[in-house]
Amino acid sequence: MIVVMQPGSSRAQIDAVVGRVQELGLEAHLSTGEERTIIGVVGTTPLPPTLDEMLEVFGGVEQVLRVTKKYKLSGWDFHPEKTRIPVLDFVIGGDEVVVIAGPCSVESEEQTIRTARAVRAAGARILRGGAYKPRTSPYEFRGLGKSGLEILANARAETGLAIITEVMTPADVAHVYDYTDIFQIGARNCQNYNLLEEVGRAGKPVMLKRGMSMMIEEWLLAAEYVLAQNNPHVIFCERGIRTFETQTRNTFDIAAVPVVQKLSHLPIFVDPSHAAGKRPFVGPLALAGVAAGADGLMIEVHPAPDQALSDGNQSLDFAEFEDLMPRLATVASAVGRNVLTGAPASV
Amino acid sequence: MIVVMQPGSSRAQIDAVVGRVQELGLEAHLSTGEERTIIGVVGTTPLPPTLDEMLEVFGGVEQVLRVTKKYKLSGWDFHPEKTRIPVLDFVIGGDEVVVIAGPCSVESEEQTIRTARAVRAAGARILRGGAYKPRTSPYEFRGLGKSGLEILANARAETGLAIITEVMTPADVAHVYDYTDIFQIGARNCQNYNLLEEVGRAGKPVMLKRGMSMMIEEWLLAAEYVLAQNNPHVIFCERGIRTFETQTRNTFDIAAVPVVQKLSHLPIFVDPSHAAGKRPFVGPLALAGVAAGADGLMIEVHPAPDQALSDGNQSLDFAEFEDLMPRLATVASAVGRNVLTGAPASV
Amino acid sequence: MIVVMQPGSSRAQIDAVVGRVQELGLEAHLSTGEERTIIGVVGTTPLPPTLDEMLEVFGGVEQVLRVTKKYKLSGWDFHPEKTRIPVLDFVIGGDEVVVIAGPCSVESEEQTIRTARAVRAAGARILRGGAYKPRTSPYEFRGLGKSGLEILANARAETGLAIITEVMTPADVAHVYDYTDIFQIGARNCQNYNLLEEVGRAGKPVMLKRGMSMMIEEWLLAAEYVLAQNNPHVIFCERGIRTFETQTRNTFDIAAVPVVQKLSHLPIFVDPSHAAGKRPFVGPLALAGVAAGADGLMIEVHPAPDQALSDGNQSLDFAEFEDLMPRLATVASAVGRNVLTGAPASV
Amino acid sequence: MIVVMQPGSSRAQIDAVVGRVQELGLEAHLSTGEERTIIGVVGTTPLPPTLDEMLEVFGGVEQVLRVTKKYKLSGWDFHPEKTRIPVLDFVIGGDEVVVIAGPCSVESEEQTIRTARAVRAAGARILRGGAYKPRTSPYEFRGLGKSGLEILANARAETGLAIITEVMTPADVAHVYDYTDIFQIGARNCQNYNLLEEVGRAGKPVMLKRGMSMMIEEWLLAAEYVLAQNNPHVIFCERGIRTFETQTRNTFDIAAVPVVQKLSHLPIFVDPSHAAGKRPFVGPLALAGVAAGADGLMIEVHPAPDQALSDGNQSLDFAEFEDLMPRLATVASAVGRNVLTGAPASV
Repeated sequence: MIVVMQPGSSRAQIDAVVGRVQELGLEAHLSTGEERTIIGVVGTTPLPPTLDEMLEVFGGVEQVLRVTKKYKLSGWDFHPEKTRIPVLDFVIGGDEVVVIAGPCSVESEEQTIRTARAVRAAGARILRGGAYKPRTSPYEFRGLGKSGLEILANARAETGLAIITEVMTPADVAHVYDYTDIFQIGARNCQNYNLLEEVGRAGKPVMLKRGMSMMIEEWLLAAEYVLAQNNPHVIFCERGIRTFETQTRNTFDIAAVPVVQKLSHLPIFVDPSHAAGKRPFVGPLALAGVAAGADGLMIEVHPAPDQALSDGNQSLDFAEFEDLMPRLATVASAVGRNVLTGAPASV
Repeated sequence: MIVVMQPGSSRAQIDAVVGRVQELGLEAHLSTGEERTIIGVVGTTPLPPTLDEMLEVFGGVEQVLRVTKKYKLSGWDFHPEKTRIPVLDFVIGGDEVVVIAGPCSVESEEQTIRTARAVRAAGARILRGGAYKPRTSPYEFRGLGKSGLEILANARAETGLAIITEVMTPADVAHVYDYTDIFQIGARNCQNYNLLEEVGRAGKPVMLKRGMSMMIEEWLLAAEYVLAQNNPHVIFCERGIRTFETQTRNTFDIAAVPVVQKLSHLPIFVDPSHAAGKRPFVGPLALAGVAAGADGLMIEVHPAPDQALSDGNQSLDFAEFEDLMPRLATVASAVGRNVLTGAPASV
Repeated sequence: MIVVMQPGSSRAQIDAVVGRVQELGLEAHLSTGEERTIIGVVGTTPLPPTLDEMLEVFGGVEQVLRVTKKYKLSGWDFHPEKTRIPVLDFVIGGDEVVVIAGPCSVESEEQTIRTARAVRAAGARILRGGAYKPRTSPYEFRGLGKSGLEILANARAETGLAIITEVMTPADVAHVYDYTDIFQIGARNCQNYNLLEEVGRAGKPVMLKRGMSMMIEEWLLAAEYVLAQNNPHVIFCERGIRTFETQTRNTFDIAAVPVVQKLSHLPIFVDPSHAAGKRPFVGPLALAGVAAGADGLMIEVHPAPDQALSDGNQSLDFAEFEDLMPRLATVASAVGRNVLTGAPASV
Repeated sequence: MIVVMQPGSSRAQIDAVVGRVQELGLEAHLSTGEERTIIGVVGTTPLPPTLDEMLEVFGGVEQVLRVTKKYKLSGWDFHPEKTRIPVLDFVIGGDEVVVIAGPCSVESEEQTIRTARAVRAAGARILRGGAYKPRTSPYEFRGLGKSGLEILANARAETGLAIITEVMTPADVAHVYDYTDIFQIGARNCQNYNLLEEVGRAGKPVMLKRGMSMMIEEWLLAAEYVLAQNNPHVIFCERGIRTFETQTRNTFDIAAVPVVQKLSHLPIFVDPSHAAGKRPFVGPLALAGVAAGADGLMIEVHPAPDQALSDGNQSLDFAEFEDLMPRLATVASAVGRNVLTGAPASV
C-alpha cells in the first residue's frame, strides 16, 4: 500500500502515519521527494483489508493507493488452474459451454415437466426453476415453495437434467440441498453474507448472480464468502446491471465475461433473459455471450410465455429455444468451443 | 392500466388481449383511433402487480402503461396522515428533527459509552452502533456480535439514548429484539425479503436504508413487506446511491427527501456519513438534508476516527459533532422545524 | 397522448386541461372512471414534442403518458426499408459486416500509411484516424489538424480504403469534407446540434457515436438533426456508456445493437476499443458485437501501441488485428452474415 | 506517477518501462520488494497527461497510479485565493449568495420583461433566458435567436439585472458577447472544446454547467480549456447527473458543492430546476443547495408555467419564487452567509 502525503505535510504528520503502520506490525518505507513524501507500507502477512480507510483519515494524507487486490481465493494467484466443477456426469468450466434452461417459476408439475423435456431435447443439461421467488412487491407470485422443489425433483428423475434453484434465506439451505444440484443466489441476495456462508458450508456448487450495482471486484469478494467455507465451486452469472437505459430491463455487461476470466479462475455464465427483459433481444444477447467466451448460459423458457406467472415477457417459447440452440453451437465452434448437448447419462 | 396496440395490429391480436383481461376478471374498454387501438383495463379489485408484464408479451402490443401505483400501504392514498413513530419518550416523523449518532461498529465498552455520552451531551437522542457488520470482504472486521449488543444495552442504561442496530439475517431478529429500539436494515439487505418480513413480524420500528441502486418506487415496495406484517413503523434512510462519480463514496440523492415525502406518509432520514464517505463532506450534506426537509439524520461519530476498525474516514470526532449540532438546529429553524435535543426522560 | 388525472381532481381542473388541448388545435377525449378521469389527446397533425411537459404542470394532473414516439425519420414507420449507405464500391447496412480500423490519432505519415496497409491486407475497408482530437484535458495531444487530413488522403490514394475522420466544430465541416468519406461525430459532440445540422447539410454519410450517458431514444433524436437536413445516411456506433463499473473504460451496451435495429432502419456499428479501454478485452467484445448482429465494427490499430500518442492501451497491434479478422468472419458466418473483405476496387 | 509491476515481471519488462520513462526525459526510481517491483516516475516538468495510459500498455505492468492531479489552473495549488468574479456592481464567489432567475426560453418581450421585474423585486440579481436553445428533438422550440437577445438587452436596461444566456456554437460567441454579461455553456456542450476555447478568448465570465455524466475531475478539466485562454472567470453549475432514478429529471449531486470547493478556487452554483424537473421539488433542492454552501443559484421562473414553450413543469411562478427567496435568505444566514438582494446600482 502506498500513502501519498500532501505537498507541505509536516514531519509530525508523516511520523503519525509511520507510527500507526508500525503499531500494526507493518513496515513503512519513506520516499521523500522535492514536493512530497510517499510512504510504502509492506508486511509479511496480508495487510488489513481496511488499512487504506484507516490511513486516509490521518492529517496530511492526500490519498492511499492499494497495490494488492482485496480478494484472494477467487484470484489466479492462489489458484493458477481454471476451476472445473463436476455436476452429474458433466463439467462446468471446461471446454464445453453448458446451457441452463427452464421457467422463471415452477408453476405446476405439468408446466415444469413439459419444459424440462423440451429443453432437454434441444440440448440443455440443467433445468432452472424457482420454488422460492424474490419479488420486488409482496403482492406478486412468490413461488410454490416446498411443493415446487418436489416438482423439480420429479423433472430431474424424468429427464436426467441437473437442477438449479434459488435459495433466499439461510434457514432454507438445508432443505433446498436435498433437491438441487446447484444453489442459485439471486442478484438481490448477492451481498447477503449469512446466506453466502450457509451455502458455502452446504458444499454443493453455488451460482452467484451479479448484483444490480455490483462492481466486479465486489462480486469476487462475495465469492470469497463461499470459498472461505472450503467450498471451491462458485459459478458467476452476469445478468445485467442497472444503468440509465430503459430499453432493456438491465444493461448486459458483456465485458464482465473476459474481465472475470482475467481476474479469476472461476467459471462465468451469462443470463441474457434477465438482461434483456424482452423476448426479441434474448437471442442476440445469448449469441454475444457465447462469442465473448462465456462458460455457459442461463435462459428462461416457458411453454406459454403469455400465461406465465412471472417474467413471461422475457421467456422464450419452445420453438424459439429450439431455434436458438444450434445457432449458439455454431457461434461456440466459431470461437473454438462447443455447446455440451449429449444425452444425459441417467436416461 | 392502458394497453397501447401497435399501428396495424389485427383484430385477432386485440381480441387476444381483451380475452386475457376478461379471464382475469377485469374489464377491457376499447378506444379505436384512426391509427391505433388503445385498451383500458379496469377492475374493482387491485390489478395483479405483474399485469403489465403479462400483457406486454402479447402479439401486437406496443406498450403497457401503468396508471396506478404498485405500492399501497406506504402511499398517502391508504394512509392520509403522516406516520408518527413513538420511541421512548419522543416521536419520529413529527415536527422535530431527530438525530442518531454513534460509531459504525461497537468496538469496546469504553469506546461505545464514551461516544454515547458525547453524542447525548451534544443533543443526539438515538445511539447507533453495529454489533453485526456486513462487510464487502470476509476478511474485514465483522462486529462483536452478542457482546456488542450487551455493550449497547449498557450505553442505553447509562445515557437514556434509544438504540438502533443492524440485523442481518432472520435468525438474529429475536435476539436483537431484546436489545434494540429500532431495527436497522442495511443497504445490502434492502431486498432481503425474508428478513424484511421477520422484522415486520417482530413489531418494533424498522429503519430501511436505501439500496445502492434502488429506485424510490422499489424502496416503497420493500417497505410494503414490513407494513404487510401489520408493522406500521417504517423509517426510510437515504444514504447515497451508486453512480459513476467517485469523489464521494456514494451519490447523496438529496431529492429523495421531498420525493418520498410526496409519495409516502412514512418518515425519511438521511445518512450523510455513508453518502459522503469522507469527513469534510459530512457536515455540508447533513445541513443540506435538514434544509431539504429530512425528518432526521444518522451520523457516524467515533472518539478517535483514525483508530476506528471501520468507516473511520467518514466518522466525525466529538468536537466536530458538537460543532455541527447547533448549525443543524439553526438550519432546521430556518425551514420551520427544530432539532429535538432535550435531555432524555430516563436520565 | 394520455393525461391521467389524480383521483379527486376537480371538474375545473379537467376543464383547464381540455381547454389547453383545444387551444392547441387538438381533440380531447374524456374517459371518466369511478376513481379517476383519463383524457386522451388526439390530433391530425403530429403532437407538439413537449406537449407532455406542458400538460404535466396543470393542477390535478397525475401523469402524462406518451403513446407515440418522438423520433420520426429514424424510425421504421416512415422508412420501412433498411437503409443501405454506399461508400466507394461497397455498402454499409447490407448483408456484409464492414470493418473500420486504424489509429486513434494520425501521428505521422509513416505511422498512418503503415497501418492503412496492414489493416487493408487483413480485410478492413475503411481507415479511421483522428486529425482533430477531442481530449478531456487541454494539455493532451490534440491532433495534427489539416496536415493530418492530408496524410489520410495519401493513405486513401495508396490503399483504396475509404476514410472516416472526426469533425468537432461546424467551421471545420467544409474543410474536412474534402478529405473524408464519412464524417465521425464523437461521443462528446453527440448533442452538439449545430454540428449535427452542419454535417447533415454537407451531405456525406455521418457516423454518430453514442454519448456517454445517452439513452437510445435520445440517440435516435440526435440522428433526426442530420436526417432533417435531407441527409439520409446516418450510421450509429455503440462505444460504451458510463456506469459505476471501472474494470473497463466504458460499459459496452451490446443490447443497443438489437434495440436500435428494432427501432430504426439505420445501420449500427460497434466500437469495442473505446468500450473496453484495454487491449485484452477488445477481441471478445468485437466477436460479441458481430454475434449480436452489428452491421460493422470500428477497431483501433496502431503499429506500436506502446508508443501511441493517444489510446495506446486500447489499440491492437498488427498481429493482433490480423489474428482477430478471421475469427470475426467465422462468427459472422455463424450468424448468417459475412465480413466484407474483398480487395478494394481502386487497387 | 507510480508504476506497479506484476509479481513475477521480468527484468526485461522492468527495463522497457524504465527506458520509455527516460526517453521522455523523466526519472525512474526502482523499489524492489520481495514480491514485486514498483517504479516511481518523477520529472521536473509536469508529466505528460496521458503518461499513465502510455505505461499501462507495457508488458508486466499491473497498474499505473497517478499521484498528481491532471488539472492545474482550476486547482488551489496554482491559485490559493478563492476566485471572485465582478459582474456589474456585485461579485460572484464572495460571501454573498447570488441568485439567477428567469424563464427557460425568451418567448416574447412581454413575458421576459414581466419576469425580469418580478424576479428583481424578489431579490434576484441576474436574469437568465435562452435565445438559443439546445433541444433533444429537432422538432421542439429552439429559441428566438437574435431577437431573443434584443429582448434580454431591453430587460437589462429596464431592470438593471445582469444577463446570462446560453451560447451553443463558436460562430455565435461574438454576437452573443454584445448582449450578455455571462456566457452559459449548457450540459450538452460541456465537452465542446472549440466552444470552450472561443468563450475563453471572448473574455467575459463563463458558467459551465456540468454534463449529464461528467465526473467532477472532468469538469475541472473542461474549465481548464477556458482558463488556459487567460480567462480566469469560470463559474461551475451543478444541475443534476444522469442515474437510474426517474422520479426526478436528474439526480442532484449536492455533494458536488463541497467537493468542488475542496478541489477548486472557482465558485459553484446549483440549478435546482433542471435537477428536479418538477416544480414541487425545486424549493427543497434550492434550500439544500444553500445549506451545502453553494455560491449561488439558478432558478427557472415563468409568468405562467402552464403556457411555457419549454420546461414549464420545472418553472416556478412569481408567487412561488417570491415565497422561496426569504427562505433561501434564512438558510443562508444559518450557514453564515447572506443572499445578495440589494437593489441593482443602475436603477
